[in-house]
Amino acid sequence: MASGEGGSTGTDSTGADRAVTTGPGAGDPVTEGLSPGVLDLLGLLAYAELVAFFRLSEDAALAPSLSDKAALAEMAVAEFGHFQQLRSQLTQLGAVPEQAMLPFVGPLDAFHARTAPGDWLEGLVKAYVGDGIAADFYRAVAALLDPPTRALVLAVLADTGHADFVTARVRAAVAADPAAGGRLALWARRLVGEALAQAHRVVAERPPLARLLAGATASGGEQGEIGRMFARLTDAHDERMRALGLEP
Amino acid sequence: MASGEGGSTGTDSTGADRAVTTGPGAGDPVTEGLSPGVLDLLGLLAYAELVAFFRLSEDAALAPSLSDKAALAEMAVAEFGHFQQLRSQLTQLGAVPEQAMLPFVGPLDAFHARTAPGDWLEGLVKAYVGDGIAADFYRAVAALLDPPTRALVLAVLADTGHADFVTARVRAAVAADPAAGGRLALWARRLVGEALAQAHRVVAERPPLARLLAGATASGGEQGEIGRMFARLTDAHDERMRALGLEP
Repeated sequence: MASGEGGSTGTDSTGADRAVTTGPGAGDPVTEGLSPGVLDLLGLLAYAELVAFFRLSEDAALAPSLSDKAALAEMAVAEFGHFQQLRSQLTQLGAVPEQAMLPFVGPLDAFHARTAPGDWLEGLVKAYVGDGIAADFYRAVAALLDPPTRALVLAVLADTGHADFVTARVRAAVAADPAAGGRLALWARRLVGEALAQAHRVVAERPPLARLLAGATASGGEQGEIGRMFARLTDAHDERMRALGLEP
Repeated sequence: MASGEGGSTGTDSTGADRAVTTGPGAGDPVTEGLSPGVLDLLGLLAYAELVAFFRLSEDAALAPSLSDKAALAEMAVAEFGHFQQLRSQLTQLGAVPEQAMLPFVGPLDAFHARTAPGDWLEGLVKAYVGDGIAADFYRAVAALLDPPTRALVLAVLADTGHADFVTARVRAAVAADPAAGGRLALWARRLVGEALAQAHRVVAERPPLARLLAGATASGGEQGEIGRMFARLTDAHDERMRALGLEP
């Protein structure tokens, strides 16, 4: 996966020097230094962070106390900060952030609609699992990016430091009520399944992004490369489940 | 209303030196430099900012575009920053923020439950009206506070710079559809009515806060003083309505 850093200078860069001001479906417009794959990736990440902000804020309503509510709000605010960084990078690269995000609104909204937490613990597990998978994904794609985009992605990835809050709360809840452990482990599996389903949908619909994710130099075998990346994300997820005291 | 700056040194300061670690209803515990009135005020403002964060995030769902959604989220994030400043001041003063906020959860939640916006424009007007009344209230109470608390309140008050976004959007909508103007003017009047109703409830339930708001030196006539403060807030609100292009 670390095979290429040419995402921004590859064969996709027809029409360089032209500002990206057209929406999805208008071909693959690119601006100097911004391949359609990178444009897709930044749009995907930006919308993912924006929607994470809204869902975490909403899930905070389930919190049993004002301080828990404020803690989840703080996670949400951190996601919004990530969104702002990604949006400003898109703008600097000459793209229109709203248009770059648009192709990913459907899949990400569908993911969240299908995984609305039923209670506070499900909300915490979702925040933790989502954050963890996002961080691993950022790390995996960073290797495929041109240096400036990679620097941004790694900056956004910087730990928001809230994992401890979540693991402590979930472990205590499972210790107090072992049955909750089984229920939450099932819930986490459902979250991963839904996330993978939407990820495959995105990859199928966005060939430039698929090419980027498969590694810039890979010829053919894209689906396999991407499948292996998803599999690695799932491995790391299992470790996070154990950190929560849950059966992967 | 600018008659006293003795809120923290007035006759309420029995039991100074004792840290505030007890909840509401446990008498009026005070810690050094923190009168029960100031404790109430900071608790009220902190919860108001926290709940404003959640309601603005929620109302952003009504936005017609991703950039409008992000703009409202940005207002919400600014409110959360205010909450963090107020919470940390409460902690520094030896109070337990959650307990200081608790008496105000009922009235503020009731206000928001009774004023859930039905559409994007109602959401914008609510954000604008709420922000404006809050700022005027902060300005009015600042004069009554000891210097450190006053400095904090004025810092929190600092304009978040989003009023222009709202006024431009609402004026354009009213220009395009004059009937919307009448509907939004009615909505704004309802917002003020509900806010005043809850404010009177808070004042009736929290005598130390009422004494603070009436001015530390006022003896008797509290209700009248507070009534005049509310009336001044309503005057300023009328000017804001005109700025939106609405009939006050």
